[in-house]
Amino acid sequence: MRVWADDARRAGRRIGFVPTMGFLHEGHLTLVREARSRCDACVVSIFVNPLQFGPGEDLDRYPRDEQGDKAKLEAEGVEVLYSPTGDSMYGAGFQTAVSVTEVTKGLCGAGRPGHFDGVTTVVAKLFNAVRPDEAVFGEKDYQQLATIRRLVVDLDLGIAIVGVPIVREADGLAMSSRNAYLSEDEREAALALSRSLSEARRALRSGERETAVLIDRVRAVLATEPLLQVEYTEIVDADSIQPVDRIDKSARLALAVHVGNTRLIDNTLLAAA
Amino acid sequence: MRVWADDARRAGRRIGFVPTMGFLHEGHLTLVREARSRCDACVVSIFVNPLQFGPGEDLDRYPRDEQGDKAKLEAEGVEVLYSPTGDSMYGAGFQTAVSVTEVTKGLCGAGRPGHFDGVTTVVAKLFNAVRPDEAVFGEKDYQQLATIRRLVVDLDLGIAIVGVPIVREADGLAMSSRNAYLSEDEREAALALSRSLSEARRALRSGERETAVLIDRVRAVLATEPLLQVEYTEIVDADSIQPVDRIDKSARLALAVHVGNTRLIDNTLLAAA
Repeated sequence: MRVWADDARRAGRRIGFVPTMGFLHEGHLTLVREARSRCDACVVSIFVNPLQFGPGEDLDRYPRDEQGDKAKLEAEGVEVLYSPTGDSMYGAGFQTAVSVTEVTKGLCGAGRPGHFDGVTTVVAKLFNAVRPDEAVFGEKDYQQLATIRRLVVDLDLGIAIVGVPIVREADGLAMSSRNAYLSEDEREAALALSRSLSEARRALRSGERETAVLIDRVRAVLATEPLLQVEYTEIVDADSIQPVDRIDKSARLALAVHVGNTRLIDNTLLAAA
Repeated sequence: MRVWADDARRAGRRIGFVPTMGFLHEGHLTLVREARSRCDACVVSIFVNPLQFGPGEDLDRYPRDEQGDKAKLEAEGVEVLYSPTGDSMYGAGFQTAVSVTEVTKGLCGAGRPGHFDGVTTVVAKLFNAVRPDEAVFGEKDYQQLATIRRLVVDLDLGIAIVGVPIVREADGLAMSSRNAYLSEDEREAALALSRSLSEARRALRSGERETAVLIDRVRAVLATEPLLQVEYTEIVDADSIQPVDRIDKSARLALAVHVGNTRLIDNTLLAAA
């Protein structure tokens, strides 16, 4: 990977990079198109990173489709697919961790201890192998995006981080590889996530700026679906991921919900008028 | 720094890098010559890294000589001196840490909690800014060298790490910027460090392979100097930095000693015959 990247850079080509865990859907492909439009060469990585899964999480059953992924990337004109093995990523004696300590508190960081250390460690490794000029991430994993932005500034990585808005199914469900886990009933119930975000945006447009009130509205929508179990619903500063009391500048509403054995996340911008 | 490095790499030049905390002595200059001999361009950084000093350590009085350092590097034909400010290295909101967890236990890691996290974090940042092909470190900080080797493998940094043997004064004292702290009496007492290492090598050559016995010999030499206070004397595996009971393959004898307010370290290879 690095030999190719060094050659490409020496040839003056700008490298765009999209790290993924595979089982690619239209959300991923939107990231790929963004990277392709911004850079001369596009690298996509597929690596289901064990470090970012906690005990009891879905590492073993995480969906995979290597052949399908490859065909999709070829159709998009992706030049390089980087899919390292677990052994090559975490060989004997591996013992290094990269941690972003503040932005990773709260939200998913509270419910998934160690998750973001796994993310930042693998992303640092992938960045070092691919040496991209730009890297494209989805806003779907919003806290992850804020974490990567911080990582790049703090470690002087010199990579432009590009965030791409969430891609949704026609009915509003945010695209996710984990949607494959959902039964028909669960999928129907999961629509309450995006509905609850819309409800908050509507309330904000009507002049409601108190986040406690906005969160109550979100929870009321989620409560209409008995299949849903809320992990968190929070409104946070878009950069620091610290909770805010009022929408004075733009903030992010983020939520995590369990539907059966499946954990889903979603979020939306709450833009101050 | 990165613009220069990217241009140099695009021009096909190999970059050699020597990170330092300044107050350069012949030991540093030996590293510079090694880097110059191996690569097309040589970058030296000078940054007294606050992250790697603990509370009560000598950050505030660490010796500095910017003009002298610059003259020495110019005389050696160093192309680039990179001396970032503390503010640019650790700006508002800085919150990222790079940790190597096992090799950093024991030896200096035991007595200086947080020290190696500070080292690996700043070295990762410097590597990302300079993007060298090779980086040269002294064996004087032996655990640091082992830590950096691990860091580079674990994070896929793709940088060759070159270790250079300790450079000593004519009387055997390992060169160190901290030698500047020593009074005449302390400097005389400090000679016991290298004497004790020689004694261990002599005993090994005579067939003594039990590390407990070798360490007793070392401590006996150090005990002849009442000004010395021993922090540790250990014999460890050269890569893992784990203590070994017998010299079956090559190992490293390392010690840290306090002389008045000054902490000195030294080490030597114990090569199995």
